[in-house]
Amino acid sequence: MRNIVVTLLIALLPYPALAQKSTPPVPRQVAQEVRDYRMDNEDRIIRELSEFLSIPNIASDTPNIQKNAAHLIEMLEARGIETHLLPISGRGPVVFGKLITPEAKRTVTFYAHYDGQPVDPAAWTDGKPFEPVLRNAAIEAGGKQIPFPENSAQHRAVYNDDWRLYARSSSDDKSPIVALLAALDALRAKKIPLAVNLKVIFEGEEEAGSSSLRRTLELHKNLLGADLLITADGPVHQSGRPLVFFGNRGDVGIDVTVYGAVRALHSGHYGNWAPNPATELSQLLASMKDADGRVLIAGYYDDVAPLGEAEKKALAEMPDNDADLQRELGIAKPEGGGKKLVELIMQPSLNIRGLRSAYVGEQAQNVVPEKAEASLEARLVTGEDPKKKFEQIAAFIEKQGFFVIDQEPTMEERRAHARIAKVIYEGGYRASRTPMDLPMSKAIVDVVRAAAGNNTVVMPSSGGSVPMYIFEDLGLLWVGVPIVNYDNHQHSSDENLRLGQFWRGMEIYAAILADLNW
Amino acid sequence: MRNIVVTLLIALLPYPALAQKSTPPVPRQVAQEVRDYRMDNEDRIIRELSEFLSIPNIASDTPNIQKNAAHLIEMLEARGIETHLLPISGRGPVVFGKLITPEAKRTVTFYAHYDGQPVDPAAWTDGKPFEPVLRNAAIEAGGKQIPFPENSAQHRAVYNDDWRLYARSSSDDKSPIVALLAALDALRAKKIPLAVNLKVIFEGEEEAGSSSLRRTLELHKNLLGADLLITADGPVHQSGRPLVFFGNRGDVGIDVTVYGAVRALHSGHYGNWAPNPATELSQLLASMKDADGRVLIAGYYDDVAPLGEAEKKALAEMPDNDADLQRELGIAKPEGGGKKLVELIMQPSLNIRGLRSAYVGEQAQNVVPEKAEASLEARLVTGEDPKKKFEQIAAFIEKQGFFVIDQEPTMEERRAHARIAKVIYEGGYRASRTPMDLPMSKAIVDVVRAAAGNNTVVMPSSGGSVPMYIFEDLGLLWVGVPIVNYDNHQHSSDENLRLGQFWRGMEIYAAILADLNW
Repeated sequence: MRNIVVTLLIALLPYPALAQKSTPPVPRQVAQEVRDYRMDNEDRIIRELSEFLSIPNIASDTPNIQKNAAHLIEMLEARGIETHLLPISGRGPVVFGKLITPEAKRTVTFYAHYDGQPVDPAAWTDGKPFEPVLRNAAIEAGGKQIPFPENSAQHRAVYNDDWRLYARSSSDDKSPIVALLAALDALRAKKIPLAVNLKVIFEGEEEAGSSSLRRTLELHKNLLGADLLITADGPVHQSGRPLVFFGNRGDVGIDVTVYGAVRALHSGHYGNWAPNPATELSQLLASMKDADGRVLIAGYYDDVAPLGEAEKKALAEMPDNDADLQRELGIAKPEGGGKKLVELIMQPSLNIRGLRSAYVGEQAQNVVPEKAEASLEARLVTGEDPKKKFEQIAAFIEKQGFFVIDQEPTMEERRAHARIAKVIYEGGYRASRTPMDLPMSKAIVDVVRAAAGNNTVVMPSSGGSVPMYIFEDLGLLWVGVPIVNYDNHQHSSDENLRLGQFWRGMEIYAAILADLNW
Repeated sequence: MRNIVVTLLIALLPYPALAQKSTPPVPRQVAQEVRDYRMDNEDRIIRELSEFLSIPNIASDTPNIQKNAAHLIEMLEARGIETHLLPISGRGPVVFGKLITPEAKRTVTFYAHYDGQPVDPAAWTDGKPFEPVLRNAAIEAGGKQIPFPENSAQHRAVYNDDWRLYARSSSDDKSPIVALLAALDALRAKKIPLAVNLKVIFEGEEEAGSSSLRRTLELHKNLLGADLLITADGPVHQSGRPLVFFGNRGDVGIDVTVYGAVRALHSGHYGNWAPNPATELSQLLASMKDADGRVLIAGYYDDVAPLGEAEKKALAEMPDNDADLQRELGIAKPEGGGKKLVELIMQPSLNIRGLRSAYVGEQAQNVVPEKAEASLEARLVTGEDPKKKFEQIAAFIEKQGFFVIDQEPTMEERRAHARIAKVIYEGGYRASRTPMDLPMSKAIVDVVRAAAGNNTVVMPSSGGSVPMYIFEDLGLLWVGVPIVNYDNHQHSSDENLRLGQFWRGMEIYAAILADLNW
């Protein structure tokens, strides 16, 4: 396959050379013109996305993450966007881009990340997370692998809205980048002028905790001025309807390791006598929550900031599709004691991400394991401090009778303490929320509704975590306008993108670029 | 390395051609003569063991387990032992051997197994469980890898008692087989006649549950007649002292899988709402035991058969080295509410062998996992039935609010039941115990004490499990005479054999062959 970016670079005129229509069209018209353009160019757009997805993008895989950044620069420069690499030692750089619109009053920055979650290829149906596969439906719905349609001058490739592209980051978060660039191409081809200056910030270590983003942006503060930052990360509403959201949760990762004897012991000769760390860990984890999933750790909900009137109203207006979700996901009884999902994600969570001790199934060995590990994660809401949350959890573990340490126990510590837990702070950041009653907030809702429909869902805060507090601290107000399907398996195996959502995302982004105004 | 078995076959005369001394020496003298022989032949014996350990021996690895059996036949036939393969479909055969001693009154059968526990090479210090490595001490004691000593006509290789041979099955259970055959070689070389007929039963699927042993032996019952069966499996006493034991525990394996949503969900968008199967599993496991490790399942201790007077006396006389063990293993407070280890293993156990849910550490993903698994194991004592034990545990899980099934839940089941556990019976067998007041029981203790010292520990029952009930059912009384070091990491990574124990084992087995009489 010929490099699609180079093809673009040759085929398209530089943006400033475009003739501009005198009166910009309304969002609905923009959406229609972008759709027309897209239907003529599906093959090219999907090829650009597939090429991008073929570059492995785990943040810690330095050579490959650099390849992603280099590829991204090519993609931006092909559109005449001025680019700057903001380097991060040992990680992928922040890729910054700028496209000035003469006489524009406002500047809008798009944020997305080009790194993806770690992968376990064995858990993927197709076994190769970085070789995009097309299916005629979701795997859960019996979707079968199909070839990418042939495209020629005589026969234009057509992609069905229900088809899905399977690959790591197909949804989280490479496709929004490609949708934005395709939206620019469409506006250019249809001679629709931009209403705003465009900036982009594409990050390469979001799934690894964005630990250098803040410092990197502060070093390049002069580049960043904007009236609004739009984050493209996350899925649309579970109903499939478009979504605008004004906040998200923070996140704290915590690793807990409980220790038994210095080595795994024969469970026959020592069982009943040697303490079992898997049992101790189970008892610890069981003590953290009540039957409704409410966290029993002292002070866990104390710092939650109350919602304002606009936020309460938006919450009340949100669709309630919990019953559908339960049915689809096979959940007989959700946690939360009867509260709705949208209410529950306005609260901090405490989630067991993973458990490991010795072996299970065919690999099980007849031992008392020497240790048991849990990966925990707390999602935070506005008002909460990540370090304080960690300390609440560590204090709780101590109160449950564990000697809490932050490194492997010494022999002396093992001999002195019946229960030992290594509790490690894996990093974290706070939640962030933009007020919903600002003129900018209302303007962005209006444009998206006009382009994508009045059924667009407006949400005070998403349950997910992206380090948007960094932008808040830099004085940038932000709003989330995600585009990908909610059932995309993001963070898990078989991540996928439903193409219908992707096409609609192009239209929404084009409407924002062409019509946002307040 | 030239095949050591073939070398033996050429070097040694067939057994029946040996001249026999008229009065057999006492066990202490036998031990001394065997020691003299051994010190002249350490290189050959270690080479024979190393060759045997180099053949991978997981029971389910059919081609390799067959290779082990073929190799074993060579080893036996090199000693003039008549061999029979008792085949098991898809598994390693039972290797049966017989060596008749003219005018012997008694027949003694040795049982051992030539298969080993599954391996995770990444968890082994040397990474290759089937490439034996020699170390100058245990890894825990800072032992370093050393080359196998050179051996030549001019310079005899000498192995230090503290050296250790690292490989899967170096202790459990190939080395007792090699020790027995080396003992035979020593007796033959020293012209010491056997006092008994010798039979051997070497099994190839013990670590996989011995599921075909019973049926296979019943089919060949005519071969099996004997006055005593000695099992060579298991370690000596933790004090390092020799051990004779008269029983062992039974075993039941149980896999428990708890289910969440049909797929792993983004922990931000669904955390607080989607039920977490790792939390549910933790709650279930935590509810199974009290703070002292006592099982809270109804009726769990009801069927335990009381000990007789001889057994109670032996228990009371056993050394109490729990404090040393605690110190060595880094255990501040054992389970059992203050009871001694030897008392506790006379009770049934319930052990978590392993836990698994999604991923931990660097591989952790921000998901609510879709399932969580625990591998459980109950050790049984005399009087208990494995199926009944399983049913007690399954009934308990049901009582804790789980819908208990034995296969993956259907979507309908998921929608109907808040908590679902798949509970699988992985097989099991009952405990077994030979009365300690039989003349045979006293005779075997006397021979071992005479050969290896009066500090030999005599134990009513070992904590481990070998399916000795099968022999009991076939009318064969059995006694355990293990030889390997107790800190051998059996069933875990870095399994090893301390050579001092191995040499002493040769002497004990030789004394039994030369002097057992009642």
